[in-house]
Amino acid sequence: MDSIAVDIGGTQLRAALYPEEGIEAKVIKSTPTRGEQSALERLFDLIQSILPADAPVGCIALGVAGALNPATGVIYNAPNIANWNGMNIIQETQNRFGIPVRLGNDANLAALGEWKYGAGIGHHNLIYMTISTGVGGGIIVDDRLVVGSNGLAGEVGHVTVLPGGPPCGCGKNGHLEALSSGTGIANYVSRQMDAGRQTILAQHPKPLTARAVAEAACKGDELSIEAFEIAGEYLGRAIADLLHIFNPTIVILGGGVIKSGDLIMGPVRRSLAASTVSEEYLRDFELTTASLGDKVGLVGALALARS
Amino acid sequence: MDSIAVDIGGTQLRAALYPEEGIEAKVIKSTPTRGEQSALERLFDLIQSILPADAPVGCIALGVAGALNPATGVIYNAPNIANWNGMNIIQETQNRFGIPVRLGNDANLAALGEWKYGAGIGHHNLIYMTISTGVGGGIIVDDRLVVGSNGLAGEVGHVTVLPGGPPCGCGKNGHLEALSSGTGIANYVSRQMDAGRQTILAQHPKPLTARAVAEAACKGDELSIEAFEIAGEYLGRAIADLLHIFNPTIVILGGGVIKSGDLIMGPVRRSLAASTVSEEYLRDFELTTASLGDKVGLVGALALARS
Repeated sequence: MDSIAVDIGGTQLRAALYPEEGIEAKVIKSTPTRGEQSALERLFDLIQSILPADAPVGCIALGVAGALNPATGVIYNAPNIANWNGMNIIQETQNRFGIPVRLGNDANLAALGEWKYGAGIGHHNLIYMTISTGVGGGIIVDDRLVVGSNGLAGEVGHVTVLPGGPPCGCGKNGHLEALSSGTGIANYVSRQMDAGRQTILAQHPKPLTARAVAEAACKGDELSIEAFEIAGEYLGRAIADLLHIFNPTIVILGGGVIKSGDLIMGPVRRSLAASTVSEEYLRDFELTTASLGDKVGLVGALALARS
Repeated sequence: MDSIAVDIGGTQLRAALYPEEGIEAKVIKSTPTRGEQSALERLFDLIQSILPADAPVGCIALGVAGALNPATGVIYNAPNIANWNGMNIIQETQNRFGIPVRLGNDANLAALGEWKYGAGIGHHNLIYMTISTGVGGGIIVDDRLVVGSNGLAGEVGHVTVLPGGPPCGCGKNGHLEALSSGTGIANYVSRQMDAGRQTILAQHPKPLTARAVAEAACKGDELSIEAFEIAGEYLGRAIADLLHIFNPTIVILGGGVIKSGDLIMGPVRRSLAASTVSEEYLRDFELTTASLGDKVGLVGALALARS
């Protein structure tokens, strides 16, 4: 049967209709998350617009950026979508369409997508991390997604990598997300500029972005290179910690910051090598980048729909 | 059928014969790990001495303190047992007795034991940590022990909790084991004494032990209380990290340091509460102490034998 996959992000809702096999969508449509209608109405209209008239749909899978319980369907906290906190999105969607609905956190589903259809095919123990505005993750152990008792597992962005370190978006300090996300990289440069450090970004419009820092680093700007080195060092340490905890055969890095290539991956690889306690962890292990690109949200939800 | 469980530690080999059900051993014997014979001969003699003459044994399960591969049977590194590195202990033992043999890391098996027969009964997502001379651990996800691709998962003692922090036994710096183990606690007091801090332990024979520090703390010694507070603070942070990664319903703490009671558990609980990013992680969650005591090594191996 066909499946419908929906990627519910902060700025955009995207939905795709997939055939029984393969990851080529029959149709993909999108709509802004915010507008006159409520986000729930926009979501339902979007799903309705791709529902096939002539064929049954086996499952609608929803990937949501936020904290949620995939077993019960309750959204704990979808920071970018007003009024969804506390809502049972599985119940609402099932009631509307009469089709089985499944739910997952977007980074968890990205892990599932890369494992089933992307860079992680054939691996049984896998960690996916997205290094973007924030840092998220998903973990596969023995071919099963780790969701935890309330669905909140895989929050690798909120492990402490530097006690007393810079503030994180969550309100705590020194988390991986505060050091190694795009926001963390831009904030590092801003703090150093405030402290009087020289950089070609001095005249750059505020607020700084990680992309601007990457461009400056490519032009040889020392502070910008340093910002990526620090982000990569802590990311490498965090990956080493995850190796010691999970002993996976692959760690897959996705998200905008990873598109900076060697600027971030060089420091990550050096730090990982220096931080791993035994060669055994690196035997038959690979650190690689995500392969599904912008499709990962939809393909991750598709993997859930078919699982 | 009966099972034989063996706990292979640094100073002692212990073996027990268990009936088909329950955790009351029919017989328990032990022997020092080191002696004139090789450790392997001592192990085989010990098993032979409890083998029943009149009843079949379904499985011999071996719990070993060290890094090993439970799937292949290869010991990577058993630091306290000469000549075992590289040995296939499953093959050797199966060849000797003609009985199926299973193998596990001691801390991993302790997790399995507490989950099946101890403080973790009924939980599906559980983390066990032993805080002793070193720090080890074992993780249960969805009722299955996480062993990783080479059997090296669960090494929670070797996550970095303080970059640039004190040296760890493994050669790296700032690991949880370096901060929160008994060795870490004693080393903290020693370093502070070297730096001139006052303590009633000044006249205590060297090397200091965590037990001596605990006794001094109970007498009100400020430096000793501080040592446990720091150990507990970093342990609480590490537990919060593990909550964010695994979202378990229980964390069980065992090992000699935990016998210090509130001296360590008070700071751990405060630090955990302060470090957890969302109340959802603490809903239906408990932090508790191990219940199997000194039997955990044998009962953990028994759980493996019966699994």
